[in-house]
Amino acid sequence: MKVLVINSGSSSLKYQLYDMRDESVLAKGLVERIGMDSSILNHKPTGGQEVTEVKEILEHNTAIRKVLSMLIDPEHGVIKSIDEIQAVGHRVVHGGESFKASALVDDPAKTEIRRLFDLAPLHNPAAMMGITATEINMPGVPQVVAFDTAFHQAMPEKAYLYAIPKVLYNKYKVRRYGAHGTSHEYVSQVAAEFLGQAIEDLKIITCHIGNGGSLTAVQGGHSIDTSMGMTPLEGLMMGTRSGDLDPAIVPFVMNKEELTVNEVNSMLNKHSGLLAISGISSDMREITDGMANGDANCILAFEMYEYRLRKYIGSYAAAMNGVDVIVFTAGIGENSVVVREKVCENLTYLGVEIDDALNAIRSGEPRLISTNQSKVKVLVVPTNEELVIARDTYRIVSEMK
Amino acid sequence: MKVLVINSGSSSLKYQLYDMRDESVLAKGLVERIGMDSSILNHKPTGGQEVTEVKEILEHNTAIRKVLSMLIDPEHGVIKSIDEIQAVGHRVVHGGESFKASALVDDPAKTEIRRLFDLAPLHNPAAMMGITATEINMPGVPQVVAFDTAFHQAMPEKAYLYAIPKVLYNKYKVRRYGAHGTSHEYVSQVAAEFLGQAIEDLKIITCHIGNGGSLTAVQGGHSIDTSMGMTPLEGLMMGTRSGDLDPAIVPFVMNKEELTVNEVNSMLNKHSGLLAISGISSDMREITDGMANGDANCILAFEMYEYRLRKYIGSYAAAMNGVDVIVFTAGIGENSVVVREKVCENLTYLGVEIDDALNAIRSGEPRLISTNQSKVKVLVVPTNEELVIARDTYRIVSEMK
Repeated sequence: MKVLVINSGSSSLKYQLYDMRDESVLAKGLVERIGMDSSILNHKPTGGQEVTEVKEILEHNTAIRKVLSMLIDPEHGVIKSIDEIQAVGHRVVHGGESFKASALVDDPAKTEIRRLFDLAPLHNPAAMMGITATEINMPGVPQVVAFDTAFHQAMPEKAYLYAIPKVLYNKYKVRRYGAHGTSHEYVSQVAAEFLGQAIEDLKIITCHIGNGGSLTAVQGGHSIDTSMGMTPLEGLMMGTRSGDLDPAIVPFVMNKEELTVNEVNSMLNKHSGLLAISGISSDMREITDGMANGDANCILAFEMYEYRLRKYIGSYAAAMNGVDVIVFTAGIGENSVVVREKVCENLTYLGVEIDDALNAIRSGEPRLISTNQSKVKVLVVPTNEELVIARDTYRIVSEMK
Repeated sequence: MKVLVINSGSSSLKYQLYDMRDESVLAKGLVERIGMDSSILNHKPTGGQEVTEVKEILEHNTAIRKVLSMLIDPEHGVIKSIDEIQAVGHRVVHGGESFKASALVDDPAKTEIRRLFDLAPLHNPAAMMGITATEINMPGVPQVVAFDTAFHQAMPEKAYLYAIPKVLYNKYKVRRYGAHGTSHEYVSQVAAEFLGQAIEDLKIITCHIGNGGSLTAVQGGHSIDTSMGMTPLEGLMMGTRSGDLDPAIVPFVMNKEELTVNEVNSMLNKHSGLLAISGISSDMREITDGMANGDANCILAFEMYEYRLRKYIGSYAAAMNGVDVIVFTAGIGENSVVVREKVCENLTYLGVEIDDALNAIRSGEPRLISTNQSKVKVLVVPTNEELVIARDTYRIVSEMK
């Protein structure tokens, strides 16, 4: 079975075409600037040459049509006919409390995803556009939705409830949902397999740290706590997001600076984090470069980032009464030698011991970076959310038949 | 030297009169409902009989006058003349960045305390009323101010800065200040003395948990991090305060429920925490009673409280790369056997081991509750913020002369 995986943003559409016989990627690509004057389609057939086209793509319907014609293009395509694609999997950010796992797209599912627009006003509508555009261009092809929140639905009440009036949960479903669920699930499973241990027996802390970032306490294969909250603002310091904050600062600043609800949201989500402290960039690579050059603001941004990440690891060790494995993944987790080094340097009280030579290796493969003596195994596991979505799609569509 | 310690709230005034020769308390008391139709003065001379008077006390000036006349009252008093009181110490909630220690009250100090009204709009004006009322009633008597925030001024930048635009720090001094500083300082010092160890060599986590509550990481005798933030809202779940929260929930709820800045502050400070989740009380004693009777909401409130407290302990262990001593203090910390038991039960990964018999002992003295084998020493230390204020006042006024 060939499965097309789609990740729709409000003005972008990422795709990967999988051959599920060997889980190989036949092609992948990205449409950017949808709805703007010159949209860009970047397409990369595996083993073939990358191709970039600039055209007018006003909405997701056209975007998918262009992607499909690229996939069957005589020169750049990788399949003969669209009919070869037997299922489509979509990434959806918010599944609320309704979706505890990936699900087939049917009318009730679509109704529910729409109902959740309120909780993910930027993301769920974009996913819905992708689903509708797929229906139009590939009528009859089964679609599956995979949710960033689903893995975290296993959290116990004490971890997902906030200590605020219960009416807010009953009326608006204000609670912790978390994010990056497919990634936390995937890397924790890969880590257990890599170590040759049953995930049921392990206490794992997964650090998915990229431009956004979240940590998850994975106990016995289940998410029992995670650092993102009702929205992706809570938790770690991120590229442009503040992460944790005295909640009283929000009304204080709104009052002082006469900010609206939207303006304060924008400030905390887009103008905070590494960007605000370094004053130069939201990108950890530029922060560490600046740090190497002695830039005081970059040093401070790095120290805050590392310190807050480390405290979350400590917090989740307490949540599980111990930790067997720490996994680093996503942009920063997979690539920043210095972030991993500095975080682990002050976790020796847990028995963490990093091997500097192993930590310095760059590779696209799962790898151990702790010493043989380390009580806690520390791993780098490249994440692959698309593969999880492809697998879920393949499984659900196969079971349908 | 006799020192009067005063803690002024907006409608209350607590006092203790110390004889600093032996640090004994000669009398203590409380004026409540200042400005309301019937104010209550409760006075307790040490070794004597408690006396309660109901009278009209419209402001702090009158309150202090009544207190002073009670202190020299032929029947209930403990001194012959007001002149015997050679110094007065005041508790002040917020010392901003200006006060890194207790200070003599002079004009610049008063100006600075007023400047900080903005950061503690409920508390600092009340303290100022106490200072002014003391000046009027005891002209020429030196006064000292002790700040809840002073001990935490040692925190490094990475712990006190939030990852938000720096203009908010530069313009409004938005940062972490913490609270309960005199208590955290006192109990960490008593703990070190009790253990016969130099505080310079210790990593201590102090849990000041009462109706409000905060944790502090005390390394080498200095506060290096604390759970309350710019305001007392951040951190632990408390009696009526939410503690930590996805900051995005604040604008979300304001928008949905059409709340003003004041209303959302009131909701998070007065209608959240244990009260909101249990639905019956903000008092841990009632929560644990309810729990013993199988009340599901009380069980949940307790579980959330314990879980969040434990995660903070884990977080500060990571902040210091280890922990030697955990200290419980304040209402809940000193009295709730079950809170201490449940928190420590899941800290065995740190080497914490509680002795159930020792934990069950009720006493007003500092005491060890961990076993001899426990890698981390766990102590209960009754706090005494008034004594710290009295000592600081005595020291500063003695140095003056």
